[in-house]
Amino acid sequence: MTNRYHLIGNYVSPYVRKVLVCMELKGLDYTIDPIAPFVGNERFSQLSPLRRIPVLIEGDRVLNDSSVICQYLDERHPQPSLYPSDIGDRAQARWIEEYCDTWLGDVVVWGMFFQKGVKRYVFGEEPDEAIIARARDEQLPVALDYLESLLPADGFLFGEPSVADISIASFLRNAAFVRYTVDARRWPRVAALLERAWALPAFRKLAGLEEKSMRSPLAEQRKVLMELGAPVSAETLGTSVPRRGVMRLE
Amino acid sequence: MTNRYHLIGNYVSPYVRKVLVCMELKGLDYTIDPIAPFVGNERFSQLSPLRRIPVLIEGDRVLNDSSVICQYLDERHPQPSLYPSDIGDRAQARWIEEYCDTWLGDVVVWGMFFQKGVKRYVFGEEPDEAIIARARDEQLPVALDYLESLLPADGFLFGEPSVADISIASFLRNAAFVRYTVDARRWPRVAALLERAWALPAFRKLAGLEEKSMRSPLAEQRKVLMELGAPVSAETLGTSVPRRGVMRLE
Repeated sequence: MTNRYHLIGNYVSPYVRKVLVCMELKGLDYTIDPIAPFVGNERFSQLSPLRRIPVLIEGDRVLNDSSVICQYLDERHPQPSLYPSDIGDRAQARWIEEYCDTWLGDVVVWGMFFQKGVKRYVFGEEPDEAIIARARDEQLPVALDYLESLLPADGFLFGEPSVADISIASFLRNAAFVRYTVDARRWPRVAALLERAWALPAFRKLAGLEEKSMRSPLAEQRKVLMELGAPVSAETLGTSVPRRGVMRLE
Repeated sequence: MTNRYHLIGNYVSPYVRKVLVCMELKGLDYTIDPIAPFVGNERFSQLSPLRRIPVLIEGDRVLNDSSVICQYLDERHPQPSLYPSDIGDRAQARWIEEYCDTWLGDVVVWGMFFQKGVKRYVFGEEPDEAIIARARDEQLPVALDYLESLLPADGFLFGEPSVADISIASFLRNAAFVRYTVDARRWPRVAALLERAWALPAFRKLAGLEEKSMRSPLAEQRKVLMELGAPVSAETLGTSVPRRGVMRLE
């Protein structure tokens, strides 16, 4: 079988989601090892020097970093293209991706999802309400104002869905996981983009697996995902499982 | 004049250096506003949503993020190409760039250069010796081991100098600023790559400006750099200057 990819990384990670959406939009064949963040054996450390997910494996090739992986997949499988053809637009798309990876990563993943989801339900610790309030009430509105200023009234940023739209929609999914809804009166373009992006078959297919992942104890996730038809690999590198493990939706 | 670029960012930043080296290798015409990190007026905040340097300005176009900018410059000015032509090699080059941007950024810039240089000489605060020791004696050796495992015995990573070599050499310059020398017995390939990269006219030209930047009080940097023939712009967005300002080499 040609172009068989293997992805290491959990469905709840927005970085993993970016790559999964790219693979789904391009119709690529893949398997997934849905290890949790902060989990992973010695072999995982060898494959991912910074112990981050996702990692893409293609035969002997090992690729790290979601942005590197998305760009690679687009160059290997140019249709449909997920990067604008205009050089200036392409730079802007990559910047929006970077903005999501770093700033929405900080605010949505670490300030909200980690606190309200992972910390409480995986590690059994209380969330830090001050961090959550700062992320939700101060930092995220600034980010949404910025994105609102960039987005078109209709459609996607550069016509067809690109890595920029995918990034915005991937990261704000994690805000939705902890019951944050983007206010459509205050940020109508962001809210409309999310609706359009999440309606794509790629996002819809993943949504079911994401919710099931969060509602299942970590130790049972693989089995549950397999029963739903997810392409879960037989082998896993996520052999060090935290004590608790049900990451319920709030 | 076509393709006139303006870059916002100081010569001592490795992120700025990456872009400067790309522009020098491609023979592009540019001006620079060498504002210090953490400095910058309201207009700077508008141009750089995360208040980071570098920012590239080309007419009405504003580009953030050093990786986005380098890729843009390479697409606009393909010769000499700074990205390998093979798709797999290109992904690997981008990954090495990302590894430097994030991990060498943490270790070398924040753990070493900021502590021993910026913190002491710009902000007048004592460095945290525990942070420095951890960065220098624990984290950096792991990074150098990893880079050593990737590098060739001779030449550059992918034949001609690429964004990967430029990144490694740009970040490790900041270690050299605080008198860290890569041990050529322990990491012969890294040490040899640095020697080759730093011998390129682009790096050599910048080195003089970097040292002069660090030896001048911030308030005098622009004048001193102009006297050396650096293409410093008349206008600056770096109008909020910290109290002290001589960033001496250690």
